[in-house]
Amino acid sequence: MHADGHPAVSGYETLTWEVDGDGIATLTLNRPDALNAFDLTMARELERCFLTDARDDDVRAVVVTGSGRAFCAGMDLSAEGNVFGLDESVRPTPEDLRAHLAEAPYHDGVRDTGGRVTLAIHALPKPVIAAVNGPAVGIGATMTLAMDLRLASTRARIGFVFGRLGIVPEAASSWFLPRIVGIQQALEWVYSAEVLDAETALAGRLVRSVHEPDDLLPAAYDLARSFVVDRSPVALGLAKRLLYRNGAAADPLEAHLSDSLAMFYTSIGDGLEGVAAFREKRAPRFTGRASELPTIF
Amino acid sequence: MHADGHPAVSGYETLTWEVDGDGIATLTLNRPDALNAFDLTMARELERCFLTDARDDDVRAVVVTGSGRAFCAGMDLSAEGNVFGLDESVRPTPEDLRAHLAEAPYHDGVRDTGGRVTLAIHALPKPVIAAVNGPAVGIGATMTLAMDLRLASTRARIGFVFGRLGIVPEAASSWFLPRIVGIQQALEWVYSAEVLDAETALAGRLVRSVHEPDDLLPAAYDLARSFVVDRSPVALGLAKRLLYRNGAAADPLEAHLSDSLAMFYTSIGDGLEGVAAFREKRAPRFTGRASELPTIF
Amino acid sequence: MHADGHPAVSGYETLTWEVDGDGIATLTLNRPDALNAFDLTMARELERCFLTDARDDDVRAVVVTGSGRAFCAGMDLSAEGNVFGLDESVRPTPEDLRAHLAEAPYHDGVRDTGGRVTLAIHALPKPVIAAVNGPAVGIGATMTLAMDLRLASTRARIGFVFGRLGIVPEAASSWFLPRIVGIQQALEWVYSAEVLDAETALAGRLVRSVHEPDDLLPAAYDLARSFVVDRSPVALGLAKRLLYRNGAAADPLEAHLSDSLAMFYTSIGDGLEGVAAFREKRAPRFTGRASELPTIF
Repeated sequence: MHADGHPAVSGYETLTWEVDGDGIATLTLNRPDALNAFDLTMARELERCFLTDARDDDVRAVVVTGSGRAFCAGMDLSAEGNVFGLDESVRPTPEDLRAHLAEAPYHDGVRDTGGRVTLAIHALPKPVIAAVNGPAVGIGATMTLAMDLRLASTRARIGFVFGRLGIVPEAASSWFLPRIVGIQQALEWVYSAEVLDAETALAGRLVRSVHEPDDLLPAAYDLARSFVVDRSPVALGLAKRLLYRNGAAADPLEAHLSDSLAMFYTSIGDGLEGVAAFREKRAPRFTGRASELPTIF
Repeated sequence: MHADGHPAVSGYETLTWEVDGDGIATLTLNRPDALNAFDLTMARELERCFLTDARDDDVRAVVVTGSGRAFCAGMDLSAEGNVFGLDESVRPTPEDLRAHLAEAPYHDGVRDTGGRVTLAIHALPKPVIAAVNGPAVGIGATMTLAMDLRLASTRARIGFVFGRLGIVPEAASSWFLPRIVGIQQALEWVYSAEVLDAETALAGRLVRSVHEPDDLLPAAYDLARSFVVDRSPVALGLAKRLLYRNGAAADPLEAHLSDSLAMFYTSIGDGLEGVAAFREKRAPRFTGRASELPTIF
Repeated sequence: MHADGHPAVSGYETLTWEVDGDGIATLTLNRPDALNAFDLTMARELERCFLTDARDDDVRAVVVTGSGRAFCAGMDLSAEGNVFGLDESVRPTPEDLRAHLAEAPYHDGVRDTGGRVTLAIHALPKPVIAAVNGPAVGIGATMTLAMDLRLASTRARIGFVFGRLGIVPEAASSWFLPRIVGIQQALEWVYSAEVLDAETALAGRLVRSVHEPDDLLPAAYDLARSFVVDRSPVALGLAKRLLYRNGAAADPLEAHLSDSLAMFYTSIGDGLEGVAAFREKRAPRFTGRASELPTIF
């Protein structure tokens, strides 16, 4: 049950999904007996959730947390056989993989399942907040990097432990991590493969803030509420795209082109109401929808 | 009047512009009765100032501040009609906008005016320092992002308030902000649309330092002076281009190509004098001009 | 002699190179009477060392430090004539330089020698740690930027002093520095051309940690050891490439493509042993070799 008492409605095996009256959704990784370990079912359900349920215009922001004492203990290595879900009979080249992606949206035998999840999170034009309540290791750590902000409990333990397992950081984490913490810190954490406590993660700017366990979700909801009440979902959705995309663009001229378009379309959309409300010293009543963003890129 | 007592020479309605004996220019946003709100006149004058006056070789660095108690209160929403200066009769696509830019330098009906200003600031091959003396909101905040360093008074209040108004962060700010403060902090400030005090801006690394109100301009001038006295304007102008451009390039090989060229041309230019002065243990007398930078890119 | 008592085996004039039993190499800049100033011999030897000796699979990580009281006092300006090693009879255009690079790996008359060194450091698929024991100025500072982490002694003094000499920051430093410290800090240090003490470098996140002089190398070795003992050299080598390359890529989809491939090949390589060891609660015995990384990009 959500703090506000709404029942879960999801149809998921490994997740719960609830939306409160302010449009703040709570997505809970819900395999507490397995420390919410990530398996192929959870991968598919997370991807589906961000591509469908979270796209509903009634959802204005998403808070992601874990059930029980962990956030997500990483890939479920207890499963028999091919834990990574890869087809070992193929030996893809970089060209193969690009060709397969062009032909079909999925290529389950090769594509990293964690990356399918993080790309779906990244593509959601709404704020996504990780509330890291306990251990977040491997994919449990890297999935949070595609979320916009990370809040941690004092009990959070975050580990990019791939080097110990002989594998690489995945889930597009090599794109996100240096942008969040800088290249020097990213390299140290990935090389050392150590599990970080909450204060270390805060000092390295991986997490935004650290909270007592009982204060974590309330802080995440307060933050989410500050993002959605009297804010335009179109403005925020476009801003998310602009910041990620232009933050990685080669030249500020690209930003000027895309934000000129975004400014144009918002100024004849929610901007009309925003300016009117400002002049009339009242709260705005925005009508724009995140599901109908104008084409900017 | 400037602190050094030089009279303003500018011909601007909304700005004052003065250059002291060390080549340090002070550009003052000068609509104090309107809290230096940004209107179309100010937009045109700022762009012109950075493309003409500031390009003079007698100008070695620029300090930007506000007259009265504000830095810049943002877009002037008191104006009647189309406050954003956009032509609402067109509905541009991304392709339209690119085509228009190729045809003509200006396309007043669609291009964001703030971005025209920040691209002009960014293109100036000289240090630009924001001395944020009070409220800097909306375009008042985003224009400072294209300046190289930001110093703040304890009275500074900085707000990326676009989400409240139903519009997006503009002025190419989505290119600059993540490079200055990292993606997590950038997203939080844009999503929340809150006005930040000086200490919050410092903790998030948006501003370089915070000063008592009376100490702000002296600190900005001291910093500017440390950038220009006995420093080569060619070396600094090229360094500015290298840092912004290669800091956004895909591969360090790009940096190697461009800095090899820049090193070549400076080593047969101001570098000859710099090395000679070093060997002779005297101050250098550089003769290179920022208006005549070699072609590097 | 190395702390562990192994004799130097190198055949270098300006360097010493030793590898201990854990595979941790110590590369010492060894012109102590000249404060380890960088000359063309050192440039060639550093490049050769990172392209050959350091590529040996017995080498798992490299610690770089200076002999005597300095790390590297910069370009050796005591030499007669053309200290930068440039051929002043050519006046290359950007196109010339690109064409020359396509034709031949070296073009000694124009290419910055520092950049040849830093590209070789960057290309090594192993952790490289700078142990900055004293003054590191000019190329002495910029060469450390291509190393993955920087530890400093309290006696370290780091200076991007190019602007005083009339030249630009080189050695691809304009690619590395903004990624390490952010664009605002990078611009300030390059504009001011001041020499920074260790605490300033730490506050600006240029160095990872500051140590008493006698503790510097032990700390560097401890860190290096944490990167190599029970870690897969293939996983770390690929992770280094992923973090630098995707940290500079335009879109997370690029990271998803490349890390999917890297995950695929490690999951049928060292990952098999890593998962087996994890399940059996024992230390892994990885057999992958950094000299045989799969093609990811």
